[in-house]
Amino acid sequence: MLEHIPTKADLIAAHQRILPYIHQTPVFTSSWFDAEAGKSCFFKSEHLQKTGAFKARGAMNAVLVNAAKGKSKGFLTHSSGNHGAALAWAAAQIGAKAYIVMPDNAPKTKIAAVQQYGGIITYCKPTLDARETTAAQVQEATGAVFIHPYDNYDIIAGQATATMELLDVQPDLELLFIPVGGGGLLSGAALANHYFGKAKVIGCEPLNASDAYQSFQAGVRIPVQNPDTIADGLRTSLGERNFNIIQQYVHEIITATEDEMKAAWKFTVSRLKQLVEPSAAAGLAVALKHGDQPCGILLCGGNMDLDPFA
Amino acid sequence: MLEHIPTKADLIAAHQRILPYIHQTPVFTSSWFDAEAGKSCFFKSEHLQKTGAFKARGAMNAVLVNAAKGKSKGFLTHSSGNHGAALAWAAAQIGAKAYIVMPDNAPKTKIAAVQQYGGIITYCKPTLDARETTAAQVQEATGAVFIHPYDNYDIIAGQATATMELLDVQPDLELLFIPVGGGGLLSGAALANHYFGKAKVIGCEPLNASDAYQSFQAGVRIPVQNPDTIADGLRTSLGERNFNIIQQYVHEIITATEDEMKAAWKFTVSRLKQLVEPSAAAGLAVALKHGDQPCGILLCGGNMDLDPFA
Repeated sequence: MLEHIPTKADLIAAHQRILPYIHQTPVFTSSWFDAEAGKSCFFKSEHLQKTGAFKARGAMNAVLVNAAKGKSKGFLTHSSGNHGAALAWAAAQIGAKAYIVMPDNAPKTKIAAVQQYGGIITYCKPTLDARETTAAQVQEATGAVFIHPYDNYDIIAGQATATMELLDVQPDLELLFIPVGGGGLLSGAALANHYFGKAKVIGCEPLNASDAYQSFQAGVRIPVQNPDTIADGLRTSLGERNFNIIQQYVHEIITATEDEMKAAWKFTVSRLKQLVEPSAAAGLAVALKHGDQPCGILLCGGNMDLDPFA
Repeated sequence: MLEHIPTKADLIAAHQRILPYIHQTPVFTSSWFDAEAGKSCFFKSEHLQKTGAFKARGAMNAVLVNAAKGKSKGFLTHSSGNHGAALAWAAAQIGAKAYIVMPDNAPKTKIAAVQQYGGIITYCKPTLDARETTAAQVQEATGAVFIHPYDNYDIIAGQATATMELLDVQPDLELLFIPVGGGGLLSGAALANHYFGKAKVIGCEPLNASDAYQSFQAGVRIPVQNPDTIADGLRTSLGERNFNIIQQYVHEIITATEDEMKAAWKFTVSRLKQLVEPSAAAGLAVALKHGDQPCGILLCGGNMDLDPFA
């Protein structure tokens, strides 16, 4: 288990470790998007990743690093989103149990995703306090290995591998647009770029959940309160380890309005025919309005309920 | 201009002719879909084709076959859907004009698609009679080459190339699930399979627009009246040339209910993260309920308005 900011060797080791389990997702381009954005854009398509999101990378890395204890005692996390499904999936890959604490108002599809990978769900009230208390109770009862969704160096190293793969095929990118919620993906991307790239790393955040922007400006973490945004994966506040890395290796954080994200989502889905989740729209919206150099855009996931025939 | 059912050589020539312009779209698989369908499924992804639908193939072939006259006089069709945009796109590839007659209640996005490829639109009342009369007037005025959306052997040969490419990478498919509206795609697929494959070709049609099913049973074309289906691309009735080929080379036509198509669309889009249009759901729905042999599924297009944030 990593107790320090992942080194270049740690990132390479994490990538080797998870490669037998994850998809090396394709990188694609779109002349429509390039015309609209005014630059060459390379999309890293983590919506096509196992479990439909980049979260599979970090969860798989953390599970493998903790495989010995995890196999006997299981793994544990609290999550209302993609990390719960990813941890359940990753644990199942090595035949381990996964205990997932979920708020009792979690969307049915998120619950179904955890269940289909064999995760054992404990419901709690929808507050951070209830989540943490319930997780502590489950850990007490089971002895399971707790894997935080983002404030964990093994998770960060795993998420970094998405950007490593992108830079491996496109080493000359000058801008990287990365969505930021808890900061697992952004801190990993910033490390990957620090070791393997030369881009300016831009964190992309909903204006309505702009704790990363505010924290980055203030130099101290400022948690977000009840954010109202379509980007459901970006409603969380920055983790401590994540913020520490972001302060050192991220160049700028730019916000996008809800209207900008909605327009970016519609444009992208209708042109690229790829289903990305609203959280991905933060990166798309900022990429559409900022910069003119060759860029990478991390499509973080594709988990979204659509019901156009309702 | 072909005046006979396309031969094997005609199909090969059409493919060579259009290759510099079209995408050889990827063929992909999904373990989720295979588990649900109970067989190995290979998706031919024409939603990633130029103009977002297989229609680009037939239109490009017809334009190139008629390039000499078309360059001086332009091309003409009537369409409320993908063929209009495809003909405008194809004509633009050789620097020719395209006149598209559209019903005045056509969706704004369909109008925008024709316009963005430089098509010259003439609006008419939303009846088949008005379309044909208006198209005749435009042809009289311009001398443009009329390209029927499906009842045309060059169009059929062009659409056949999608199935040719699928069979080129997966020659041992035993079932082919092909949506049927006017029959351009299905008649082309049936010819391609006759010359290059060994599959049983299954036309897939909405129960609420089942003129192909009824015509196939009766042995005579029975037009559909005001069909009510989400599969907007399959509301047209079979063309004469198409029906002739379908009678000879299609093995079965199977219908899908609206509920089956809606469920198939949601399952596919949520699992594969690929945006396909409702017409593609006819093939998906039939594939999910019929047969247990390795199959090909033609994802005919991805042009669909989504507005989940409205």
